Amino acid sequence: MEQGIVFIVSAPSGTGKTTLCRMAVDFFPDLRHSISYTTRKPRPGERDGVDYRFVDEATFEGMVADGEFIEHAEVHGKKYGTSTKDLQGLLSSGLDVILDIDVQGAEKIRERLREGVFIFILPPSIEECEKRLRRRNKDSAEEIKKRLNKALEEIRRVENYDYIIINDDLDSAFERLKSIIIAERTKKQRMIGKVRARFNLT
Amino acid sequence: MEQGIVFIVSAPSGTGKTTLCRMAVDFFPDLRHSISYTTRKPRPGERDGVDYRFVDEATFEGMVADGEFIEHAEVHGKKYGTSTKDLQGLLSSGLDVILDIDVQGAEKIRERLREGVFIFILPPSIEECEKRLRRRNKDSAEEIKKRLNKALEEIRRVENYDYIIINDDLDSAFERLKSIIIAERTKKQRMIGKVRARFNLT
Repeated sequence: MEQGIVFIVSAPSGTGKTTLCRMAVDFFPDLRHSISYTTRKPRPGERDGVDYRFVDEATFEGMVADGEFIEHAEVHGKKYGTSTKDLQGLLSSGLDVILDIDVQGAEKIRERLREGVFIFILPPSIEECEKRLRRRNKDSAEEIKKRLNKALEEIRRVENYDYIIINDDLDSAFERLKSIIIAERTKKQRMIGKVRARFNLT
Repeated sequence: MEQGIVFIVSAPSGTGKTTLCRMAVDFFPDLRHSISYTTRKPRPGERDGVDYRFVDEATFEGMVADGEFIEHAEVHGKKYGTSTKDLQGLLSSGLDVILDIDVQGAEKIRERLREGVFIFILPPSIEECEKRLRRRNKDSAEEIKKRLNKALEEIRRVENYDYIIINDDLDSAFERLKSIIIAERTKKQRMIGKVRARFNLT
């Protein structure tokens, strides 16, 4: 059985990354989300084993100590991690996997997933990013400034990715994400085994 | 102005390559066909400068002597060539170009178009290839055998391409071609200039 492809989708916060990943998983029957472990509490409507695997601090730290995460990170005091075993299980059953990871997490994973396809989602502009943060209306002016600086710093990491999608319109951004997934599946190295078998090439 | 991308589409004959290229040009307003020069006579409905540039033997040979073709080939006694100047003109105006070229032509062009995206279209099977040749009902059994051997030989060249599309269904083959074009336009190296300008990155 041929190994699946890992698509790593990363972005500054508030660029629509999670929405785009969900759309992709809904669209492709053979593309899965690897479910993250987290120490944060479920929000209303979130289900354990579907949205996240909710674990307590001690369980999470035990998994870190046992090297069970391919990447893990702390965001706003809560911990998130992707299990290596979960990921390998999906890939070796031939499924493709989409990982929705923050910029720091994506960089940590790069070395260990050299075959992965790294996709960066960008906001249409810094002004739009600022507008979105203001619209949420829950951060102070100073906090907004801090978040904007962080976003700009993350945007500078764009060079480390294979593909760049500017999310100026959700439908067209999804069209591009979908195309990347289809095109990667059409690449010579993914197709060659199938072609050799079909045409009895040696 | 950023240079356009060249997509080189190649295939054994009778795999639907030309149909797929036409569909792509119809779909993408900023994708053009580079119009080939040929010494063959126009078929009913074909227009000079639209389908081909129809030239006589002497003109064609003059262009060969002057090195005006990026590739040229003889197929069934008729000559075909792609003008370097036409191609560069389209690319430097920022348009993407799709070249519909036979397998021999594609290999000749590879060295000179290292940045090109090479796409191979395959028939669903050798049996299907044979069926199509028989259906045309114009070749002798021996001719069919010869053509099939040539197709198989060409299929062995598949390793030299970046992407492989098996044309088992025209719509789904076109979906894949479309995705390759969109994905290539989304690649980091094609997007980075735009991103730097938009976010004032240095």
